[in-house]
Amino acid sequence: MKEKSENTESDKRRSPCPVACCLDIMGDRWTLLIVRDLFLGKSRYKDFNSSPEGIPTNILAERLERLAKHDIIEQIPVSEGSKRMKYQLTAKGRALKSVILAMKKWGLEWEEDTEVHISRTTG
Amino acid sequence: MKEKSENTESDKRRSPCPVACCLDIMGDRWTLLIVRDLFLGKSRYKDFNSSPEGIPTNILAERLERLAKHDIIEQIPVSEGSKRMKYQLTAKGRALKSVILAMKKWGLEWEEDTEVHISRTTG
Repeated sequence: MKEKSENTESDKRRSPCPVACCLDIMGDRWTLLIVRDLFLGKSRYKDFNSSPEGIPTNILAERLERLAKHDIIEQIPVSEGSKRMKYQLTAKGRALKSVILAMKKWGLEWEEDTEVHISRTTG
Repeated sequence: MKEKSENTESDKRRSPCPVACCLDIMGDRWTLLIVRDLFLGKSRYKDFNSSPEGIPTNILAERLERLAKHDIIEQIPVSEGSKRMKYQLTAKGRALKSVILAMKKWGLEWEEDTEVHISRTTG
């Protein structure tokens, strides 16, 4: 129960601190990896699911819903008139680029044996 | 069990991606708030514990241990010759400033009613 209560998202903010509010939404091991994948050009459920970290499908579904609820991603048709949908970052989501880049730079500089995989998808 | 397995830290990396490696260590709702507090000048257990988000003591203790294990914080005497210890960021920890600042900027710009509290402590 401890870990559960620690990590279950609540609509209640912990404080007005902008860092805390950012972590209220994205403070977990997976959400920012989906945002990273969107910056890498991935846009479909199966693309996120096939990333090397192996996100469990139930977590992926919940995180996509959460990101959409907070207006960080949105769904659009894969092509004009298509009923199949893909995900894309909103302006609020694209503004997370500096967070992702700061983490990338930190990881490359301070964690051994990290490397950037360029894996743009065309889906 | 799902939430527990989702969030329990493991020494096993999920991938060599620097963003994923950063989140392997700090991908939760609390760890970066402790780093934020250290940047704000806080250095003692009671300082972190009194932050407005109300971090539970068991989580605080575990996160301080984790940050020390990953060489992000270290303990030093509160004054020369003292046996009482305080925490400070290492160079690796101070390098997280860009991550904290990016989250702060994002939160201020995109989340309503966020505000920065200046709360330097002298402890």
